Amino acid sequence: MEAIQCDVVILGGGIAGYTAAIRASQLGKKALVVESRKLGGTCLHRGCIPSKALLKSAELFSQMKRSSEFGIQTGELTVDFGRIQARKNEVVNQLYEGVQLLMRKNKIDVIQGKGRLMGPSIFSPNSGAVAVEMEDGEMVTVVGKSTIIATGSRPRTLTGLPQDEKIMTSDEAFQMEQLPDSIAIIGGGVIGVEWASMLNDLGVKVTLIEASDRLLPMEDEAVSREIRRIFEGRGIQVRTGASIIPERVEPGGNLVQYTIDVSGQEETLEAERMLVSVGRAANVEEIGLENTDVQVAGGVIRVNSHYQTNENHIYAVGDVNGGLQLAHAAAHEAICAVEHLTGQAAYHTPAHRIPKCIYSRPEIGSVGMTESEAKSSGRRLKTGMFPFKALGKAWVMGETEGFVKVIADADNDDVLGVHIVGAHATDLISEASLAQLLEATPWEVSLAIHPHPTLSEAISEAMLAVDGKAIGI
Amino acid sequence: MEAIQCDVVILGGGIAGYTAAIRASQLGKKALVVESRKLGGTCLHRGCIPSKALLKSAELFSQMKRSSEFGIQTGELTVDFGRIQARKNEVVNQLYEGVQLLMRKNKIDVIQGKGRLMGPSIFSPNSGAVAVEMEDGEMVTVVGKSTIIATGSRPRTLTGLPQDEKIMTSDEAFQMEQLPDSIAIIGGGVIGVEWASMLNDLGVKVTLIEASDRLLPMEDEAVSREIRRIFEGRGIQVRTGASIIPERVEPGGNLVQYTIDVSGQEETLEAERMLVSVGRAANVEEIGLENTDVQVAGGVIRVNSHYQTNENHIYAVGDVNGGLQLAHAAAHEAICAVEHLTGQAAYHTPAHRIPKCIYSRPEIGSVGMTESEAKSSGRRLKTGMFPFKALGKAWVMGETEGFVKVIADADNDDVLGVHIVGAHATDLISEASLAQLLEATPWEVSLAIHPHPTLSEAISEAMLAVDGKAIGI
Repeated sequence: MEAIQCDVVILGGGIAGYTAAIRASQLGKKALVVESRKLGGTCLHRGCIPSKALLKSAELFSQMKRSSEFGIQTGELTVDFGRIQARKNEVVNQLYEGVQLLMRKNKIDVIQGKGRLMGPSIFSPNSGAVAVEMEDGEMVTVVGKSTIIATGSRPRTLTGLPQDEKIMTSDEAFQMEQLPDSIAIIGGGVIGVEWASMLNDLGVKVTLIEASDRLLPMEDEAVSREIRRIFEGRGIQVRTGASIIPERVEPGGNLVQYTIDVSGQEETLEAERMLVSVGRAANVEEIGLENTDVQVAGGVIRVNSHYQTNENHIYAVGDVNGGLQLAHAAAHEAICAVEHLTGQAAYHTPAHRIPKCIYSRPEIGSVGMTESEAKSSGRRLKTGMFPFKALGKAWVMGETEGFVKVIADADNDDVLGVHIVGAHATDLISEASLAQLLEATPWEVSLAIHPHPTLSEAISEAMLAVDGKAIGI
Repeated sequence: MEAIQCDVVILGGGIAGYTAAIRASQLGKKALVVESRKLGGTCLHRGCIPSKALLKSAELFSQMKRSSEFGIQTGELTVDFGRIQARKNEVVNQLYEGVQLLMRKNKIDVIQGKGRLMGPSIFSPNSGAVAVEMEDGEMVTVVGKSTIIATGSRPRTLTGLPQDEKIMTSDEAFQMEQLPDSIAIIGGGVIGVEWASMLNDLGVKVTLIEASDRLLPMEDEAVSREIRRIFEGRGIQVRTGASIIPERVEPGGNLVQYTIDVSGQEETLEAERMLVSVGRAANVEEIGLENTDVQVAGGVIRVNSHYQTNENHIYAVGDVNGGLQLAHAAAHEAICAVEHLTGQAAYHTPAHRIPKCIYSRPEIGSVGMTESEAKSSGRRLKTGMFPFKALGKAWVMGETEGFVKVIADADNDDVLGVHIVGAHATDLISEASLAQLLEATPWEVSLAIHPHPTLSEAISEAMLAVDGKAIGI
């Protein structure tokens, strides 16, 4: 049995893994990636990219339904869901080729197979070598000076739910061949909200069920309220404070019957399909952690602020360490880990400065604290709010829903949080991310000239609104 | 004859004028606006807003033409140009009501009428009072402690061009009732490029004629090249280094015959309409400047860096002072002038840090120096370029054309210029504007986490590319 030597062996070729490999290669290190499925991982194949491709088709359809308002006459519009899924697959494949090309360009070897961490062995006195079982059954061992675990996560499901093809996680939903007439979406977090928005736009009757008292409980309450108002206006049934009873889900016949508990009252509903979007579980099983001293707590790998496990030369980045479970957070962690293990001065962004995006219609982008988090921190606050309906560009686009909300520290003028609901929110939020990094005050952000007419003016105006100086309201 | 007293009298109620009035009111000053036409001026009625409304319809139509790619089937698509124009008027009227509301909310009086600056008179020992002739012929005099001239600009035309309704400036084009089959657009600057993009999307045969050797001669050369390549791919005839001979424009019959001079060779062409977009002339006539010591040079009012004319208490802001002729520059100047005249410490943004936007398809956003300007400044440069086709989100949207280009100082890491061609470029550029204001280095901008998958990642990647550290190329 042979052993391959490298500087960094990376277990998992998702966005965390391949980004780590590229940065390592840029820093002159030999990186090797072990991937059991396809390079690109969840983000590319079962997450960010395919969901945004479906959302794009849904968004276009929703615009086309109102095209006569914009002076475009059309015949009857019909959705070809097979084609929507096919385009989604084309986009994924295109980007999959791109990732493979990046590996070749950066001279990174990729071993296709199932990897497991080893303990100390004849190959290395340290734990962290990776034994790979390839598809043909051959075994190979990869020994790196450092090891990065980037095995990602998978959709969580609910204990007690029956097995039935009508009951899906997002993994299966990406394979749906036809649109159902109706769907129950269990979980009103990011994934549930995105699928609700998309399927509603495509004409599916959606019931969105969330156990806590509001949609998107991690977002600012103003965001939750706005998105609920908009969703209900579009005909989405939103049920908050409603818990599904897994044992009372009955997929017999053509419909799934299910029962929810709303403040102790049971209610039985039905839908053609059920999508379970109740979070994601870290992939810590069957990767040989038991052969190492890497510690798992609460189902995720414990790491320090350099993403080191409690074996110094073994890092864990991305969803598997239970952080924010966002692709860009994973990529950032990967870069930090590689820069740390190569002795560079890595800049570590604290979790509360990592922006979050939701690609519903309208989009949501946020960074920093919610108002209630900021209140709990004991600070004295001032807030600014600017509605999209006071923006010329929003009227031009016919997209006047939403707002920018800024939360600032009344004593030192720190921008504590920025929350955007509205068109292009996911592109707009990066400016707020930069403002936080550079510790700009709201006034300073407003001094940066925002072109007219753009949606970005809402950021400038919300910053001015913090001190009562907005022009357009 | 009576005289109205106020703190600031503002001649002209466009974006410069009404913004000045609002900020003056916020600072506790009594402002009064004199407007001869409609509040909102060129930007709202004959510029930014109506053009973007037309462009929005054109963009939607262009997306709908390829909707089957996204899985949306449609019958035959037809353009109802009357409805497009009507929607444009609705958007303008909506925002016109908004501006009027802002005046009432800020307790700003607006006098409808034609104003002229007065010299010293019985009303005031200083020049700068405004005599207003109202629509009913009544006269009123407004005396302010300060005066702001914000009379804007109008489309320039070419001496020697015949008068004919087939030959238009943008003012008349906004009133067109039908789309022509073909159009010659004279001038490949911002307005010419926007109209070319829009009319081509709506099915008009467009010939775009520019005297200099490239479209958009004020932009970075890479931008000019990219937009030309894309326009030609869409079937727009682009003629650079081509000068129209005004005396050889013949609008007889159904077609305008016109002759261009290309390197001394004459060529005669024809089109159903001609749009003349050769810049804008400042409105310095018939406003009583001769009664004051305000100086006009090169057709524009001369001002210092506080936007004071050479009469200290008379300011001139917006297009009339011959600056960048951009709405957001006008609003910024208005705020600076008001803050200066009220004794506040105004922050003056140098012209090269004011972002510029072009709302063609794809959009263009830029801030700072072009590469050739930066070279001429004698600096040692490094540049980074990131193409949209390396962005996941661009593939998701089906908008993979364009790039972000960053020009940095190789010695001190200043970001000298950022140039974006691509979807949402006009929203993305504001982050670069903030980066310049805060004097962030490319590396710092890349450290601000840009969410995935978004178009804003291209900014982060182009910043990294400056030092060869982009991940996705």
